[in-house]
Amino acid sequence: MKVKTLLDLFIHDLSDVYSAEKQITRALPKLIRAATDEKLKAAFQQHLDETQGQIERLDQVIDAHDELRLLRMKCHALEGLVEEAQELIEATEAGPVRDAGLIGAAQKVEHYEIATYGTLIALAIKLQLGEAANLLAATLEEEKSTDKKLTSIAEKQ
Amino acid sequence: MKVKTLLDLFIHDLSDVYSAEKQITRALPKLIRAATDEKLKAAFQQHLDETQGQIERLDQVIDAHDELRLLRMKCHALEGLVEEAQELIEATEAGPVRDAGLIGAAQKVEHYEIATYGTLIALAIKLQLGEAANLLAATLEEEKSTDKKLTSIAEKQ
Repeated sequence: MKVKTLLDLFIHDLSDVYSAEKQITRALPKLIRAATDEKLKAAFQQHLDETQGQIERLDQVIDAHDELRLLRMKCHALEGLVEEAQELIEATEAGPVRDAGLIGAAQKVEHYEIATYGTLIALAIKLQLGEAANLLAATLEEEKSTDKKLTSIAEKQ
Repeated sequence: MKVKTLLDLFIHDLSDVYSAEKQITRALPKLIRAATDEKLKAAFQQHLDETQGQIERLDQVIDAHDELRLLRMKCHALEGLVEEAQELIEATEAGPVRDAGLIGAAQKVEHYEIATYGTLIALAIKLQLGEAANLLAATLEEEKSTDKKLTSIAEKQ
């Protein structure tokens, strides 16, 4: 795809995060199974439910503005992050050390999303896609909240 | 590598971020060449200088505690992030749209580092590696400051 305008860039980044969210829905069940701490399992489960809601919200973003469409693309950064989490699971046994590693891996994913949604919101505002900006801002708040919750679980371990 | 203890996990994550910083020093010159906006070029150049300082700081972390050593590993997440930046450069022509994309790509890298250093500091504190925690906290502040500076450049575009 040639990215010539800010709208092209927005569509490119929106498609990237769509792929990222889809990959996250496939990765989280593995993290839930790998985790031991019940609060951590519950936090991952809650984030899985939220992620499914975030994908629906991305569909709403597309539906809200005629000029938007999704491109078929794969988010390579998420592939790398998922690969790291998988390696961590293979390198550890179930228990507190793996849980600490899983929290770190999940926070990297959260920060990937925080950066991406931050950029998307800034672009949506510039492009005067108000409905998109509002929807994306709701997701950004959820991602920040998940990141904080993971920090709080890590501190209590 | 088998990760059995929190110290193993700390060494694993430290080695991962060492690889990440090295990859960033190779990627930033490409971003500098690809960018058009002078303030953005200057911000990338400043971050390149900072990154070299951050690698030296990681060497200081290793030197400060006898139990620490670096593992040879490659940060896959950074590989994915660099690949995304490269694809963006290929998909755009020099100018404001590419600059906006480069800012987004760089902020993803910053957030990767923010998450990673956050985890490392928490582990260093648990492991009572006080000197390491202080050094890593200095880098975390630089990363947050770079992220804010990039947001400010994006807003003025």
